Amino acid sequence: MSKALEGLRVLDLTRVLAGPYATMLLGDMGADIIKIEAVGHGDDSRQFGPYVNGESAYFMSINRNKKSITMNLKNPEAIETFKEMVKKADVVVENFRPGTMEKLGIGYEALKEINPSIIYAAASGFGHTGPYSKRAAYDAVVQAMGGIMSITGPAGGPPVRVGSSIGDITAGLFCAIGILAAVCHKKDTGEGQKVDVAMLDCQIAILENAISRYFVTGVSPKPQGNRHPSIVPFETFDTADGIIMVAVGNDSLWAKFCNEIGLPELIEDERFNTNPKRIDNYDELRPFIAEAMLKKTTAEWQDALDKCGVPESPINNIEMVLKNPQVLARDMIAEVEHPVAGATKIPGVAIKMSGTPGEIELPAPTLGQHTDEILSGFLGKTPEEIAHLKEVGAV
Amino acid sequence: MSKALEGLRVLDLTRVLAGPYATMLLGDMGADIIKIEAVGHGDDSRQFGPYVNGESAYFMSINRNKKSITMNLKNPEAIETFKEMVKKADVVVENFRPGTMEKLGIGYEALKEINPSIIYAAASGFGHTGPYSKRAAYDAVVQAMGGIMSITGPAGGPPVRVGSSIGDITAGLFCAIGILAAVCHKKDTGEGQKVDVAMLDCQIAILENAISRYFVTGVSPKPQGNRHPSIVPFETFDTADGIIMVAVGNDSLWAKFCNEIGLPELIEDERFNTNPKRIDNYDELRPFIAEAMLKKTTAEWQDALDKCGVPESPINNIEMVLKNPQVLARDMIAEVEHPVAGATKIPGVAIKMSGTPGEIELPAPTLGQHTDEILSGFLGKTPEEIAHLKEVGAV
Repeated sequence: MSKALEGLRVLDLTRVLAGPYATMLLGDMGADIIKIEAVGHGDDSRQFGPYVNGESAYFMSINRNKKSITMNLKNPEAIETFKEMVKKADVVVENFRPGTMEKLGIGYEALKEINPSIIYAAASGFGHTGPYSKRAAYDAVVQAMGGIMSITGPAGGPPVRVGSSIGDITAGLFCAIGILAAVCHKKDTGEGQKVDVAMLDCQIAILENAISRYFVTGVSPKPQGNRHPSIVPFETFDTADGIIMVAVGNDSLWAKFCNEIGLPELIEDERFNTNPKRIDNYDELRPFIAEAMLKKTTAEWQDALDKCGVPESPINNIEMVLKNPQVLARDMIAEVEHPVAGATKIPGVAIKMSGTPGEIELPAPTLGQHTDEILSGFLGKTPEEIAHLKEVGAV
Repeated sequence: MSKALEGLRVLDLTRVLAGPYATMLLGDMGADIIKIEAVGHGDDSRQFGPYVNGESAYFMSINRNKKSITMNLKNPEAIETFKEMVKKADVVVENFRPGTMEKLGIGYEALKEINPSIIYAAASGFGHTGPYSKRAAYDAVVQAMGGIMSITGPAGGPPVRVGSSIGDITAGLFCAIGILAAVCHKKDTGEGQKVDVAMLDCQIAILENAISRYFVTGVSPKPQGNRHPSIVPFETFDTADGIIMVAVGNDSLWAKFCNEIGLPELIEDERFNTNPKRIDNYDELRPFIAEAMLKKTTAEWQDALDKCGVPESPINNIEMVLKNPQVLARDMIAEVEHPVAGATKIPGVAIKMSGTPGEIELPAPTLGQHTDEILSGFLGKTPEEIAHLKEVGAV
């Protein structure tokens, strides 16, 4: 079966997370991803542990479906070779600090001279404009700066960083969206363009209603712990052996929930019989529920609440996530055979397309695994030309 | 200037967050978003406070660039009218519980009979397959189930929900990517398809390296607070008047940082002179830094660390985010004039495209604001036909 992005040629200069995440998504849907890595060293994340037979599990988890060529972009012959590749490519993606590509002589202005329809996508910490543009950013810095930490954490407690690198990952997602919109426009008009995505901008874009709440109330929202700001009960409770999240989203669920936890008298209690009243009288209500929830184990509550249709979930750790029947049924844990690391497990393809399903066809490449194949197959170089490029240290 | 997705016609049946977030992204880039809302009631999030002149700030923040038509999809004439719209549309997006569209007679199988090239995108809690498929989900439930809570929170403390609805928002982002990939495929082949995105799947996809770490080590990662798992020092410290995040990403920054905080003797200290040693001797190292950081205010440290190039950020609350010079320079806070609410501020467009820049052209619609315009302009209905549809309660 064909893939949605078959034939889309992407030159991928990105490292570590935001950029590689974006190109992984494109590769999953069939784009040809040519990952250009520094000679000898490669993507920085190849040095991130833990390792399997010397291969970084971190690197392997986000670089499937890509081919690796090593190039030394400080070598003039490598730059010439890169420019030859740009002539035949649809998309260039980079996540260097702004200005680096220009210093190498391959900024957007230079590349569009070579290929006017090229789509040039840049993922950076702060974007290619503005006073912070040239600063280095890390995920933790943009999480702190962009506001998400200020609304995450135990109620009344300190701000907390989101445990996965949401600053990088959301930038990767926005970058993929920008690239695909540009591809649509190119298919219609033949025109290329530059797509500039900043990690900090994306943090603003995912704040949900925090910004509008601030503008209306004049008060900055604070960490709320696990409680929903405007629905009660909608939070975690301790059970006999752990914790459970319950989401009593409306009054009909409220009645079912009260019956199930053995407190039917609360359903019509004047203090609690509507959601606004449950919010107002939260401090009175919570102890009743908290005490009731301690009487069964998490697994027992799961069974009971599922049966009466009250949305719930245990707080799964990673081991539990990987055993979850829905996660498994959706193929969200993929097993991949890596030539060096052997069988490894990585997240599956989250976008399920009926006509052109995504697929993990290739494990993450070893460093420079496809250098010869790309130089000969994609660029038509002769063995002598390839030998020369290696000799001068260009690839 | 033209827009990247100009001419793309999207019928948007979605409510609250994941679906509306996806169609907002498409609308920002020029797609025509026809938001179909329940007669009288509309998108559920129109009832979410806080309100400005009776209009929900929540709703307004994610429904710009859309036109609203009200339809009662339980009325057979409304279903006929919807099917007429499908004939002229490129994309249908819905986020009902799986099975709802089939019950209404407008599931993917029915719609592709009418328009074989239609792209049908569904965002749901658990997806359209698997044992949990028919269950209701809320953001808090998928955050608990998908593992991100188990790695978010103070070190040694309880798991914490991410303060913005990342379960919905990432599903919206993946959904937009799936739709655009399907649009690319349709432009090449004329073929439509179904795109099925589950909030839970997306939670697995954003776990970063937690899954591969588990497979290599056999240990489920735990909440780490604000500390980086493999770089030191890379975390928050208390200052004289608040908190600051510092990200000392390599040994060269380590030297600059030690000099700046008045502890140059630590640079070459045998216990701390490489990152692996700083990790091993973390408990010895932290008190030195913590004490030093208390000596200046957050603003003073910002100045000092910026000057020597050490990445840092205060933990901005929403008020501070909205005053940040980079956020403002990037137009990430947009002012929109709403016909009822007046001037409101909402997040800007995060994807910056040089050739076809996104734009906020329309404020969020009032309920049914464009019903007549869509029926006459898009479907070519006469005033009499429109009056009839209203009379029978179809629109």
